[in-house]
Amino acid sequence: MDANTKAKRRAPPPGLLAALGEFLGDRLTTNAAVCLQHGTDESSLVPQPPDAVAFASSTEEVARIVACCASFDTPVIAFGAGSSIEGHLLAVQGGVCLDLSRMNQVLAIDADDLTATVQAGVTRNGLNAALAHSGFFFSVDPGADATLGGMAATAASGTNTVRYGTMRDNLVALTVVTAGGEVIRTARRARKTSAGYCLTQLFAGSEGTLGIITEVTVRLHPQPEAVAAAVAHFPDVASAVQVVIAARQMGVPLARAELLDALTIRALNAHSHTTLPEAPTLFLEFCGSRNQVMEQGQVLQDIALEHGGGDFQWATRPEERTRLWTPRHHAYFAALQLRPGSRSLTTDACVPISRLAQCLDETLADIRASGLMAPVFGHVGDGHFHCLLLLDPASREEAAAAEGVSQRLARRAAGHDGTCSGEHGVGLHKMGYLEEELGAGAVEVMRRIKLALDPRNILNPGKVVHVDAP
Amino acid sequence: MDANTKAKRRAPPPGLLAALGEFLGDRLTTNAAVCLQHGTDESSLVPQPPDAVAFASSTEEVARIVACCASFDTPVIAFGAGSSIEGHLLAVQGGVCLDLSRMNQVLAIDADDLTATVQAGVTRNGLNAALAHSGFFFSVDPGADATLGGMAATAASGTNTVRYGTMRDNLVALTVVTAGGEVIRTARRARKTSAGYCLTQLFAGSEGTLGIITEVTVRLHPQPEAVAAAVAHFPDVASAVQVVIAARQMGVPLARAELLDALTIRALNAHSHTTLPEAPTLFLEFCGSRNQVMEQGQVLQDIALEHGGGDFQWATRPEERTRLWTPRHHAYFAALQLRPGSRSLTTDACVPISRLAQCLDETLADIRASGLMAPVFGHVGDGHFHCLLLLDPASREEAAAAEGVSQRLARRAAGHDGTCSGEHGVGLHKMGYLEEELGAGAVEVMRRIKLALDPRNILNPGKVVHVDAP
Repeated sequence: MDANTKAKRRAPPPGLLAALGEFLGDRLTTNAAVCLQHGTDESSLVPQPPDAVAFASSTEEVARIVACCASFDTPVIAFGAGSSIEGHLLAVQGGVCLDLSRMNQVLAIDADDLTATVQAGVTRNGLNAALAHSGFFFSVDPGADATLGGMAATAASGTNTVRYGTMRDNLVALTVVTAGGEVIRTARRARKTSAGYCLTQLFAGSEGTLGIITEVTVRLHPQPEAVAAAVAHFPDVASAVQVVIAARQMGVPLARAELLDALTIRALNAHSHTTLPEAPTLFLEFCGSRNQVMEQGQVLQDIALEHGGGDFQWATRPEERTRLWTPRHHAYFAALQLRPGSRSLTTDACVPISRLAQCLDETLADIRASGLMAPVFGHVGDGHFHCLLLLDPASREEAAAAEGVSQRLARRAAGHDGTCSGEHGVGLHKMGYLEEELGAGAVEVMRRIKLALDPRNILNPGKVVHVDAP
Repeated sequence: MDANTKAKRRAPPPGLLAALGEFLGDRLTTNAAVCLQHGTDESSLVPQPPDAVAFASSTEEVARIVACCASFDTPVIAFGAGSSIEGHLLAVQGGVCLDLSRMNQVLAIDADDLTATVQAGVTRNGLNAALAHSGFFFSVDPGADATLGGMAATAASGTNTVRYGTMRDNLVALTVVTAGGEVIRTARRARKTSAGYCLTQLFAGSEGTLGIITEVTVRLHPQPEAVAAAVAHFPDVASAVQVVIAARQMGVPLARAELLDALTIRALNAHSHTTLPEAPTLFLEFCGSRNQVMEQGQVLQDIALEHGGGDFQWATRPEERTRLWTPRHHAYFAALQLRPGSRSLTTDACVPISRLAQCLDETLADIRASGLMAPVFGHVGDGHFHCLLLLDPASREEAAAAEGVSQRLARRAAGHDGTCSGEHGVGLHKMGYLEEELGAGAVEVMRRIKLALDPRNILNPGKVVHVDAP
């Protein structure tokens, strides 16, 4: 966040709210509590409420709201589940928050094509509930029960990306409302296309700054016949990482590969009264036919033992798998409980896996030097990890120390040919890192695209890239 | 192709060739034969040579050539292997062809990360030769030995997309020279990123109209332990398609799934003196561990028999697999031999697989009604097929009839929620289809992007989207 994004809060012009209220009725509100909630995300950033919140019920209505705001030159900020964590939805220039959560219809499930089309407000759990008993599932699983519109807008991913890909990899097409209030569809529903510029991937990850995503078509996957889970601890981070590298090189289709550091394990033991060894630990999952998972489990066990893996446990029966994996699912909340009352500044670096062990070691050393407490865990199969920098909300010193760790990690990730953001996006918080990571020329290309598609800078202004307001 | 794209051929301004020659020396030529070769692709379109051909040796030199052409307002058309088939490289407005084929260095193979970085002129066979004995391979396999720069620029795919994904799916990052002659890198080498707009996928598939791709970082895959191949014929197209749908729904990881129609089989029998039944035929391949491919082969055989599959043959030993699959590899040339001396207008429709059988049946009926001979085959696992409309090069009537089939197929594909181009791109030939497929609003967004990134319209002008020249 820098001076530019804080520069000005545009007051809502007289007449705008009346114009919106005409067709939204009581689905438009300026209630302070509702506005505050819609200007608050899951980060440790200070909330910034919009001037009003509009609850949209259809793509056509979104188009009307955007056109109306455009005619009054007023910012529009899309809102799904409010679970983003980089300040994406903070109304830094005021304006109207466009809440899409009521657009929660599953529009089509095409089993033969392995695709589903949903309104932007459908959550991942909502879609999977609609798919229950179908034999198929939607794979992308960020921690929160985010909306699919939000997940597309931030290019989210999650624990099973190593097998099933990111949100980007699972997108087929989007319906988008442009800054001019026009409705476009980025692609048809074919599995692949070379017909023109790839608008799907341009709007995906644009965080509501290029258009408002109102419908999403995603890929589905067949439920695997069998799943096996494994847990093993290692003498050091590098050994654990080597196991995952070897498994990928051998083509073992890992469904999940999560690495928890010793501090996170300590947090889990305290939280769940378990007695896991306080050492770097891999939580693994693989899936396929029954024979395949048995075979893969054996291969993995052999690799793990070669790399000093201790206490290797694996399970194929559902209740055993649940028992093995439950600690991993509690990691986030257990980590926060290491320091009751704290908030977390959560980092998001992702590097080529060959650099992961070194990057992790350097980061753990930097955290120790900072005096902060920060459990570390991540999606090691993708070279991706999070540090939860635990902060006393009242301490400016700790906030500054955490920001320092975060900035040095962004630079370190770029130095290892990686990125400051593997899945959380840029939002407000990482705008300052982009140029160092990608170069001024690449950021200038982004800026040109932003100005071409949103010349009045009304779509989530002050996020992703800086542009001069009109 | 319409009047607009043919509108004007800009003469090369005096001084440009001298300026380019200063640093290119004999790597700049106006030799008529070389220019003609660089204005000719593999389509049935009439060649349109550039005014000069520049052979670049480095990214920096590409930047210098583009900057030079920009200062003289002269078109620049990137050229790799010349194997595109939609008129991408025809110099409709004259200008300089920028031949990247001498930029053929493999820059890095990162085995731990399963990535390779190459100059744009490296071909897919060239990269795979460099990977020999590494245990890894590069998967994307369009028919021709295309360059990776060209494959990225057209968002190519091939026969094993159903398992390993398209060129888009296998791209990690690109180095691109912008219209202003600046060098940018679209991403670092992390396996995933949410840091800003997705420039990688924007330049991919932009066919040299937004920037010139000079380096490509791609994903590699481990060589599978075992491969099995199968061939079976079916009473009709719908039954064959149903087998592939069922296999995908059951999660059988098909590596290849090719459907050949009865006419293509007739062509193969004539070409290779085989006696395959003249019926719709599936050529399948699956891969994994030895046990997996045995298991998958059995599952597939069961599915095929349920759908009337006859003469089911399968093979796991390399020489047997080669014997089984050799006819498929000869399909293109065998098809052309059905009518010696003919050229082919090749279609490229891709639809959701649930619509594939109907779309194929309607298309086969349309071909029959047209009086043309057109073997049909394709990548059925992706819902994708090609019709080779065989033409007497001297006959205007046949050219018009083929164009009619092609146009109706583009419309039919859109009607089935599919695309006119699964892998060949837009080029000149499919510009007229985009608006019907994606709507005027989406094409207008593409136009704005083009104007934002190439305001003087010097990068491969007259392709993908129409813009008014400056």
